[in-house]
Amino acid sequence: MTNKINITLSTTKKEKPASNQLEFGRVFTDHMFVMDYSSSKGWYDPRIVPYEPITLSPSSMVFHYGQTVFEGLKAYRTKDDKVLLFRPDKNFQRLNLSNDRLCIPQIDEEFLIDALKQLVSIDKDWIPTAEGTSLYIRPFIIPTEYYLGVAPSKFYRFMIILSPVGSYYKEGIHPVKIFVENQYIRAVEGGTGKAKTGGNYASSLKAQDEAEKRGYSQVLWLDGVEKKYIEEVGSMNIFFKINGEIVTPSLNGSILEGVTRNSILQILNHWGVPVSERRLSMEEVYQAYKDGLLEEAFGSGTAAVISPIGEFFYKEEKMLINNGETGELSKKLYDTLTGIQTGVYEDVFNWVVEVK
Amino acid sequence: MTNKINITLSTTKKEKPASNQLEFGRVFTDHMFVMDYSSSKGWYDPRIVPYEPITLSPSSMVFHYGQTVFEGLKAYRTKDDKVLLFRPDKNFQRLNLSNDRLCIPQIDEEFLIDALKQLVSIDKDWIPTAEGTSLYIRPFIIPTEYYLGVAPSKFYRFMIILSPVGSYYKEGIHPVKIFVENQYIRAVEGGTGKAKTGGNYASSLKAQDEAEKRGYSQVLWLDGVEKKYIEEVGSMNIFFKINGEIVTPSLNGSILEGVTRNSILQILNHWGVPVSERRLSMEEVYQAYKDGLLEEAFGSGTAAVISPIGEFFYKEEKMLINNGETGELSKKLYDTLTGIQTGVYEDVFNWVVEVK
Repeated sequence: MTNKINITLSTTKKEKPASNQLEFGRVFTDHMFVMDYSSSKGWYDPRIVPYEPITLSPSSMVFHYGQTVFEGLKAYRTKDDKVLLFRPDKNFQRLNLSNDRLCIPQIDEEFLIDALKQLVSIDKDWIPTAEGTSLYIRPFIIPTEYYLGVAPSKFYRFMIILSPVGSYYKEGIHPVKIFVENQYIRAVEGGTGKAKTGGNYASSLKAQDEAEKRGYSQVLWLDGVEKKYIEEVGSMNIFFKINGEIVTPSLNGSILEGVTRNSILQILNHWGVPVSERRLSMEEVYQAYKDGLLEEAFGSGTAAVISPIGEFFYKEEKMLINNGETGELSKKLYDTLTGIQTGVYEDVFNWVVEVK
Repeated sequence: MTNKINITLSTTKKEKPASNQLEFGRVFTDHMFVMDYSSSKGWYDPRIVPYEPITLSPSSMVFHYGQTVFEGLKAYRTKDDKVLLFRPDKNFQRLNLSNDRLCIPQIDEEFLIDALKQLVSIDKDWIPTAEGTSLYIRPFIIPTEYYLGVAPSKFYRFMIILSPVGSYYKEGIHPVKIFVENQYIRAVEGGTGKAKTGGNYASSLKAQDEAEKRGYSQVLWLDGVEKKYIEEVGSMNIFFKINGEIVTPSLNGSILEGVTRNSILQILNHWGVPVSERRLSMEEVYQAYKDGLLEEAFGSGTAAVISPIGEFFYKEEKMLINNGETGELSKKLYDTLTGIQTGVYEDVFNWVVEVK
């Protein structure tokens, strides 16, 4: 693969939305990064081009067999107008893990970081400035072979698109209510749970929809084998503070290896907070709640960073956590992570990467 | 929804491939059926138009979250030049089951049968005539909203495309070798196993790939909970003949409800052959093999109709079935099903639907 990225700049500039009108994932910048793959050429023709539609035959594999992977990360503008990426190496590392599970060819991770930096640099005026806003980055791969056989595609397209996004918490960080799912399963060991692939999200929609109808904003996923052990919450990893200790489910093959999850574990270790990665049943959490030892619970992910949980609905019972308010540790982790991401806090972990 | 289908005929006709050069799913006919959905209009603008590419924004949900469903069936040309469909009602019924699981709006099944008939009638010259050939029909639905939020799409496109396909068995029906999968899982109860959705096929690719590298053509899927009970083979349902009785795994929520599977059960009942739908462990099959009671095994699906199994690789052992040859019952079922489908055998079950 040649590392030379061809750049074609857009001749027109789209109007940028006002900072207070930003939604998630609806508006996209002027450019995108594109690269193709064929069995004979490998990954080829890396290019930055004006944001434009994709045209594919109806027989293109992407419309039929779900062989897709994606990533999500963000670029932040600091108070002194620097542009920072948060741990992009972890995202592209995970992209290759997803690729491996989905039979998609590996991509040079260093090259992708370089490509991303060039793209963000070109569209840097799109990074919003208001507090809590950022530029959401969506790398993704689709199979493009025109063939209805069930087999790995011989052709792929890798793309990165950028979307300015508003603050996840329009009125400040606040807790959500979670329905403990007892019917649907997100993933199981031996499946695709740890890969960031479309099918995992498609399969989650129905449970999410039914939870919303009951007045809950997300579901808590239990394991697919015994429906006892906690896996994720919505599309986030999950943490509990039980009797002073932080507990999160260990990575078991069906849980996504969240970059935010990994960062939280490092921060907690740095702070000297006791933390345990292990198998954790919902019954154990319920018992801790009954014993008055369940102090906090929160989800973690790129979009919300930290999403405090104020209530679980489990076995026809409402479990109120920390009086339905954001816990002290949840808030401190949120401030620390967003502080590092936006250059307000010192980056002691060497996580942020500046886009020059 | 209006039931009036607008028809725009192609002004040019593509060249049709020779009967002996037909592959599966590579060449498509001159027309396709298209219909759109929006929350406000429901399903609207049903139309038959020239086969042409789809153009979508890179942010279209289909490229990210796998909320797709599809079906597969065939049209056959009889010796006296009639055009027959095989149980299209069952396919559109299952499409709606898949839609339900994937949060895609339901579609009027009667209307879809009518639309399919009109489309096949327009492109009927594309149905090949040689023995074993047919016109493969691929209805599918993709989410088309331009939005990166994880939620059911508010817009969809339903399409039917047609592909003339060659005989599955170029040199006559012959048995395949199957690897009993002990690591990867296709689906689990509470997941999407019984829906015909892209993610199920994406997750199967890696196991299939590894089996092929070992010299096996498909994998046998075991259940996701105990990895003991038989589910499917490749993308087919599976049957065993054990000591004179036909056994197939019962529909448990993670197994696809195959139209061919259903047809086989009806035929066997009609013949008075003892048949049992129940939970069946691989250990039980292995024990039957050891006891000399495993007489036949075969997969069933739209593409192959019947795919005899000549060997299983299980626990480092090769289990040779019926001396690696096609069993008598497998062959009889194949002849009966294809006979009904192509109008050679009497359609005592009222399964075929003529396209006038």
